Amino acid sequence: MFAREIELRGHIIDNLILPKAFDTILELEGDYKVLEFDIGKRKTDPSYAKLLVIGKNQSHLDRILEELQNIGAEIPEIEDVEVKAAERDKVLPDGFYSTTNHPTYIKYNGEWILVEKPKMDAVIVVYPDEKRAETKVMRDVKKGDLVVVGHKGIRVMPPERPREKGELFEFMNSEVSAEKPKQAIIRKIANEMYQIREEYRKTGKGGIAVVGGPAIIHTGGAPALAKLIKMGYVQALLAGNALATHDMESVLYGTSLGVDIKTGKPVLGGHKHHIYTINTIMKAGSIKNAVEQGVLKKGIMYECVKNNVPYVLAGSIRDDGPLPDVIPNTIEAQNKMREAILDKKMVIMMATLLHSIATGNLMPSYIKTVCVDINSDAVTKLMDRGTSQAIGVVTDVGVFITLLVEELERMEMERK
Amino acid sequence: MFAREIELRGHIIDNLILPKAFDTILELEGDYKVLEFDIGKRKTDPSYAKLLVIGKNQSHLDRILEELQNIGAEIPEIEDVEVKAAERDKVLPDGFYSTTNHPTYIKYNGEWILVEKPKMDAVIVVYPDEKRAETKVMRDVKKGDLVVVGHKGIRVMPPERPREKGELFEFMNSEVSAEKPKQAIIRKIANEMYQIREEYRKTGKGGIAVVGGPAIIHTGGAPALAKLIKMGYVQALLAGNALATHDMESVLYGTSLGVDIKTGKPVLGGHKHHIYTINTIMKAGSIKNAVEQGVLKKGIMYECVKNNVPYVLAGSIRDDGPLPDVIPNTIEAQNKMREAILDKKMVIMMATLLHSIATGNLMPSYIKTVCVDINSDAVTKLMDRGTSQAIGVVTDVGVFITLLVEELERMEMERK
Amino acid sequence: MFAREIELRGHIIDNLILPKAFDTILELEGDYKVLEFDIGKRKTDPSYAKLLVIGKNQSHLDRILEELQNIGAEIPEIEDVEVKAAERDKVLPDGFYSTTNHPTYIKYNGEWILVEKPKMDAVIVVYPDEKRAETKVMRDVKKGDLVVVGHKGIRVMPPERPREKGELFEFMNSEVSAEKPKQAIIRKIANEMYQIREEYRKTGKGGIAVVGGPAIIHTGGAPALAKLIKMGYVQALLAGNALATHDMESVLYGTSLGVDIKTGKPVLGGHKHHIYTINTIMKAGSIKNAVEQGVLKKGIMYECVKNNVPYVLAGSIRDDGPLPDVIPNTIEAQNKMREAILDKKMVIMMATLLHSIATGNLMPSYIKTVCVDINSDAVTKLMDRGTSQAIGVVTDVGVFITLLVEELERMEMERK
Amino acid sequence: MFAREIELRGHIIDNLILPKAFDTILELEGDYKVLEFDIGKRKTDPSYAKLLVIGKNQSHLDRILEELQNIGAEIPEIEDVEVKAAERDKVLPDGFYSTTNHPTYIKYNGEWILVEKPKMDAVIVVYPDEKRAETKVMRDVKKGDLVVVGHKGIRVMPPERPREKGELFEFMNSEVSAEKPKQAIIRKIANEMYQIREEYRKTGKGGIAVVGGPAIIHTGGAPALAKLIKMGYVQALLAGNALATHDMESVLYGTSLGVDIKTGKPVLGGHKHHIYTINTIMKAGSIKNAVEQGVLKKGIMYECVKNNVPYVLAGSIRDDGPLPDVIPNTIEAQNKMREAILDKKMVIMMATLLHSIATGNLMPSYIKTVCVDINSDAVTKLMDRGTSQAIGVVTDVGVFITLLVEELERMEMERK
Repeated sequence: MFAREIELRGHIIDNLILPKAFDTILELEGDYKVLEFDIGKRKTDPSYAKLLVIGKNQSHLDRILEELQNIGAEIPEIEDVEVKAAERDKVLPDGFYSTTNHPTYIKYNGEWILVEKPKMDAVIVVYPDEKRAETKVMRDVKKGDLVVVGHKGIRVMPPERPREKGELFEFMNSEVSAEKPKQAIIRKIANEMYQIREEYRKTGKGGIAVVGGPAIIHTGGAPALAKLIKMGYVQALLAGNALATHDMESVLYGTSLGVDIKTGKPVLGGHKHHIYTINTIMKAGSIKNAVEQGVLKKGIMYECVKNNVPYVLAGSIRDDGPLPDVIPNTIEAQNKMREAILDKKMVIMMATLLHSIATGNLMPSYIKTVCVDINSDAVTKLMDRGTSQAIGVVTDVGVFITLLVEELERMEMERK
Repeated sequence: MFAREIELRGHIIDNLILPKAFDTILELEGDYKVLEFDIGKRKTDPSYAKLLVIGKNQSHLDRILEELQNIGAEIPEIEDVEVKAAERDKVLPDGFYSTTNHPTYIKYNGEWILVEKPKMDAVIVVYPDEKRAETKVMRDVKKGDLVVVGHKGIRVMPPERPREKGELFEFMNSEVSAEKPKQAIIRKIANEMYQIREEYRKTGKGGIAVVGGPAIIHTGGAPALAKLIKMGYVQALLAGNALATHDMESVLYGTSLGVDIKTGKPVLGGHKHHIYTINTIMKAGSIKNAVEQGVLKKGIMYECVKNNVPYVLAGSIRDDGPLPDVIPNTIEAQNKMREAILDKKMVIMMATLLHSIATGNLMPSYIKTVCVDINSDAVTKLMDRGTSQAIGVVTDVGVFITLLVEELERMEMERK
Repeated sequence: MFAREIELRGHIIDNLILPKAFDTILELEGDYKVLEFDIGKRKTDPSYAKLLVIGKNQSHLDRILEELQNIGAEIPEIEDVEVKAAERDKVLPDGFYSTTNHPTYIKYNGEWILVEKPKMDAVIVVYPDEKRAETKVMRDVKKGDLVVVGHKGIRVMPPERPREKGELFEFMNSEVSAEKPKQAIIRKIANEMYQIREEYRKTGKGGIAVVGGPAIIHTGGAPALAKLIKMGYVQALLAGNALATHDMESVLYGTSLGVDIKTGKPVLGGHKHHIYTINTIMKAGSIKNAVEQGVLKKGIMYECVKNNVPYVLAGSIRDDGPLPDVIPNTIEAQNKMREAILDKKMVIMMATLLHSIATGNLMPSYIKTVCVDINSDAVTKLMDRGTSQAIGVVTDVGVFITLLVEELERMEMERK
Repeated sequence: MFAREIELRGHIIDNLILPKAFDTILELEGDYKVLEFDIGKRKTDPSYAKLLVIGKNQSHLDRILEELQNIGAEIPEIEDVEVKAAERDKVLPDGFYSTTNHPTYIKYNGEWILVEKPKMDAVIVVYPDEKRAETKVMRDVKKGDLVVVGHKGIRVMPPERPREKGELFEFMNSEVSAEKPKQAIIRKIANEMYQIREEYRKTGKGGIAVVGGPAIIHTGGAPALAKLIKMGYVQALLAGNALATHDMESVLYGTSLGVDIKTGKPVLGGHKHHIYTINTIMKAGSIKNAVEQGVLKKGIMYECVKNNVPYVLAGSIRDDGPLPDVIPNTIEAQNKMREAILDKKMVIMMATLLHSIATGNLMPSYIKTVCVDINSDAVTKLMDRGTSQAIGVVTDVGVFITLLVEELERMEMERK
């Protein structure tokens, strides 16, 4: 018989881990027997289950076990991970283990090692001398890298759902539809942001990243985002050529994509403003230079420069210009984005499917995520990316960010 | 040769009337010759065109002429309208003329008579004794009614596009997409509303009608709409069972469809609150009674009662209950809606496709229209209904109405 | 201590009943102790849990118990239901029990009675002499009716999720997004329909209801729906004035809302065709008469008449006309719709939010539901109505129904 | 007085050129006098208008003239273009002329030269020795390049609207909403494609480019697109890493993003298939190698290789991997895309906003464009990009392409 014991621990019923385990076995046409089951008697008690998982043959059993591991099951008397050296640069050994975005441990030489830089759809490379392991994307794998294969010796730790009542992120992956009151949500997000900023000010760690699209400027949200940066709530800005160009266009010409920000009407000839803006920055040499030369005197990009907030402007095939600060190589841009995001406590994604999904692909599951878009399909797509503490808000982004800043100002007044 | 002269007058080039005339003839495979053309030499001058329209046979020519009339062409040396008596109730004579929603004149006994109560897709009934004509919907036609048939003696006057720069409604049927700044638009709408209310206060004529769906309450916009009524900006409310029920639910239970308005989270057992609310009003006998008995102490419906604002709650097959104030018969509801809307200067439609399209079907083209919805498809559908001075705003309705009221309050302070 | 034992039985882990019970208690700030827990050892074995539920006071405990009942918990040593007589027509006694759409039993005089005509948001009325109980909507309650109040003696049976692999409806409430292959889904729906029709032919029971909007005709799906009726796959049609009118317009004039069905282009003057169509039916007196008089020779409504398929055309305030067959009173229309739907095995909802939600409100949870719309928001809204075996398909409805009929024809060929 | 004569020629009324000219002058607060106006007497006759345009000062007049030129006005007794040398690489001289995507002539040394490679938002660089001019994007401008500045000596030729009745593209920028019959449109598109392919086969010129997103594969459209390529209807494929990867995933594993193409259900472990696929191609070295080594035996990419259809796979920050054939540098990718598109007769854009808008930015206005997406917002955005012969179809893309291929096959049978 091809069978193996697995164990599940924690709040496995209300975190849906046990139901998912049963579903997985059922779906893969495996079988199981419950060997032990110890349900938490009170709501604070964890539960425990020991199952015997049964497969049709060894590879069938292995496949089931692999899936069960990804939802958090442990395989007791665990063996070491198996590793294989890559034979060529960028080419993975057969049977490589593809990561989730959850914190993951591997057992190597009898010891549990936490894998660094968690990320989805990557592989785990082990450095035996340093007793270290980290995720690598396929293209960074070098000949000779020791890549984890199979499923032995791996333990995935999906974040537990917060059990505190009243928590913003108590609903896993909840979505706030267009037909919900937004003020309450904004208040909770503001509160969370306030705490993160305070912690960042004390420790210099964590902080908030903003991922944004040009609709922030089109919808009149630029002044609010600029103020958010000035107030110290943004520790990194991930965007593209369009957000930066239209922000500076709105500062230099009062328009966004040629539409007057004050009146909402197209200005004749305004469709050239973004090209003029890019040419102005080209002359200055960079956004930083433009700020220092006094060419750019306010706005989102200005505040980033003035407040030393790092920004990553990732290139796209839609770009006009692009600005000299844009990174045209998408692989280089991904690397910079990942660097900027890895240590953050929260990411706020606004009005950009491209940059938001790209960021979601690069980040660990424990970073809190807020997705804002007027299109509910976009929000749903973003919420499906596997972050565990995410909230989606379907609303007008220009209004959202304006109300968010007002709430933060009110909060600061009260808490002084 | 089957041909006939027609005339076009006014700003027929920038109002697109001449291009549309050419298109129409082309599309119907007719032919034309330009007999006279006098272009306005300066931008304030009207233009004039006399065309010879040529058809393949009389009925082909008639068909072309009918279409040209609907876009405003005149047929000189015009004959009287032709009328036929309806043979049975609700049954129209063959060849009946189906109306546009534009102001329309008919020539009867040599005199031009303005048709009362303009409305789309209706017929014109003539009362010779009273020298009067009015539109009637099919179901109201009685045996013996004199119904206009054919296309002779009819003159349609599509409203001219305002030529003032800076006018809110200068764009005919313009749509404000999700990616536009909303503050500027809100300011202009508020300004227009202020003027209409002032005029209403002086003359007791005109005023504003609000057409609304329950998402106003779900998105937290109820207090703002209640205030709008209190401030005197609403002269009629067109809605359904859901808006009234959820407004009163939010007053009685603090929830809307069971979702806490303050926290945005579902309240356990809250899905019953709307049923409890309806039962409460059933006990009182009507919304008015509930206000007078002190059961209902604030909210949208409360302000309607207190400020004598007439409301029409039209029934729908989706209704639970419904409330005793709801008109379950849709034909009766249409009649009440039309009465409420006919003399208004502006209609604001928010977050309801059903009631908004129904209202659009009932109203003349000269009433200014503002459509607000978070779904751009809904806004586009509403803008396609043929009103000539309409503006569509794609945004979060709860936030829209809150900002609108803030703007009106600011305006009142300044203008005092 | 205010505490009470409850029991949960069945596949309570993978049907998520146990997790939901824990969530509910937690959410309502109650407490619990697990007294017994017997997990099914093998995947076919049911599980059993006995919990002690603890509340702060009697009414708090009652509230928790009520919610637990609605998800299927039993309260052992159960007492009889409590009933109160309605004091007036249409007015409910305080504390009335508001129903779910699941099959429900009540204990009355020591016996369990199945409540007839399950429906959401209604009340249960007991007829002691007949040992019978049924749901009633508020407006049908008469003075003296014995209405169930409180939560004692009630047992709700939410349908179990099918455990068969490969079942179409094995995912509860799953939604098929725009980005999914539709052919596979269509094949499964066709298969299900085939079986239901075969059973209907044998037993005269069950069958399929179609709920449809006019977009079926606009998108070119009318011939396919007509064929579906002819082939015997439709036992009831629930729609409105628009579907019927545009279907007959397409038969009489080749257009739908004035757009040529063959070329997709607007026909000049075509916007009057629907009014002409209504007038034609007015003359005939009814759709049935028009078929019998040879005026109407094909199409959806024609096939309904020819194949004795009952149709309910519910009125709405958007209606032009309406047709003589339309029921303008929405309450009467609801009653007819409910009658038509109660005994069906499957409902297919296509391209109408209004009629689909109205139908969803009226039907028991065990009827299989297929929702088709090009708008994912509409599908999501429909799927949230609490049916337990529902599938949502985001696609072009004209194409969907055409492919569905092709699949059924293929299936009939093969199975002959 | 700051005034200047301009001339307008052609079907300036029904092409809306004259109304637009009036609007433009009005909007910019200029004035005009009509000096001559000669209306085409019959529908085939062109019209002619000579206007005196009046500005407040020279720069105001210049601004108006510039806008008028962009809609096709000529300034008689025209002077030569003015050029200025760029002082640095990538930096444009002040007052540079920013191009439209319409065919454009410049008068240089008294001669009219057609500007090569028309494209929006670029500049015109003149090569006096070669009597040649072409557009250049800002980043390609080199120090010393002679860039056109101001507005003198430029003539823009917006394509005339086809006057043939029954033409697919007779509506400029028309959009086919979700509520339209699709079969008719598909037939017309197929007919257009057939003619373009026949011409391409004879002359080796023109042809069709397809721009596609991965939803083609997710919705089951991959086999149809592969067949389209095989049948000779595709002369270039513009896509990204996702389309290529999921196409090959569907060939190698039967899934697309882990969802079984046949059943529409997620395959457990399937989320790794795209990573496995990329690794497989990495091992082979390239898609071409994979085809030659027999690893890849069918599908879209296979047919491209087999039929020598060039493809451009442009990189994006969302990419996993990416495949070795992907161009990670977005500027390089833009250049390749432009090369691939410039000489085509038609572009079909399916289910990708990113690649479609990028392509729209790069192409001249005379290429016929078909945009297909299930999201009407996406189609509207694409249609707003300024192509003059574009048609938008809101439908399910997998079904669209399947029906398109069926129609082409039928057409080929008939015309043999």
